[in-house]
Amino acid sequence: MSDCVFCKIASGEIPGLRVYEDEHTLAFMDIAGDVDGHMLVIPKAHYVSILDCDPNTLSHVIRTVKKVSNHLVANCGYEGIDLMCANGESAGQTMPHLHIHIIPRKTNDGLGDKGEWPSFPGAKRDIREVYEQLKMM
Amino acid sequence: MSDCVFCKIASGEIPGLRVYEDEHTLAFMDIAGDVDGHMLVIPKAHYVSILDCDPNTLSHVIRTVKKVSNHLVANCGYEGIDLMCANGESAGQTMPHLHIHIIPRKTNDGLGDKGEWPSFPGAKRDIREVYEQLKMM
Repeated sequence: MSDCVFCKIASGEIPGLRVYEDEHTLAFMDIAGDVDGHMLVIPKAHYVSILDCDPNTLSHVIRTVKKVSNHLVANCGYEGIDLMCANGESAGQTMPHLHIHIIPRKTNDGLGDKGEWPSFPGAKRDIREVYEQLKMM
Repeated sequence: MSDCVFCKIASGEIPGLRVYEDEHTLAFMDIAGDVDGHMLVIPKAHYVSILDCDPNTLSHVIRTVKKVSNHLVANCGYEGIDLMCANGESAGQTMPHLHIHIIPRKTNDGLGDKGEWPSFPGAKRDIREVYEQLKMM
């Protein structure tokens, strides 16, 4: 979609810190600066949310989420992964292009205890430095 | 897995408020009582998280998440859907069987504003009454 920021990141028109990509999906660093290692996985085609996304594309998206998550745990020193996805403004969605948040976790990382959802206390490290450690390409 | 509560709910050995099921997946009401309409989608086969779940099963799970989400918005008066999934104890996971949380949302439902993740203020309605309105089968 011509005025969609995430479509422009997918196409390369707007630069992004690309962690992984394939034909259908892209994983890139979230620049909100709310928590270190925060990434987003999106379909390259424009869908607002899971509600309008076709099932095949959604399968590609979740497979990329898994691929990136496995990489973060196997190769980057993380122990767990929180996934979050807001669908619709009433659900808190602010960017109207389907995106799944990946929050990589470690024990005692200060983002929340067992049974709690992660807090977003602000990133502590330079995003480019984190990116260099986490990117898959 | 023989001692897994979610495997027992999937098989029917432990009763659950079953919202939707097919060959590979089950959606049922979360009985935590933390927010009205809270559901979980699981694979019927035992996987701890997305990290060990095979990609095909994961595709089935996300397609069921979509199916249930579309139902909640199209037929049950909800406007949006929050999805959350903790993978690993360090990420807050308490039940070691892959599950995706579905939190159905409405504008001004008191669970959080735009750009915020939902809070869990406690259910306000009887879970069986909610279940009767939301079930797909």
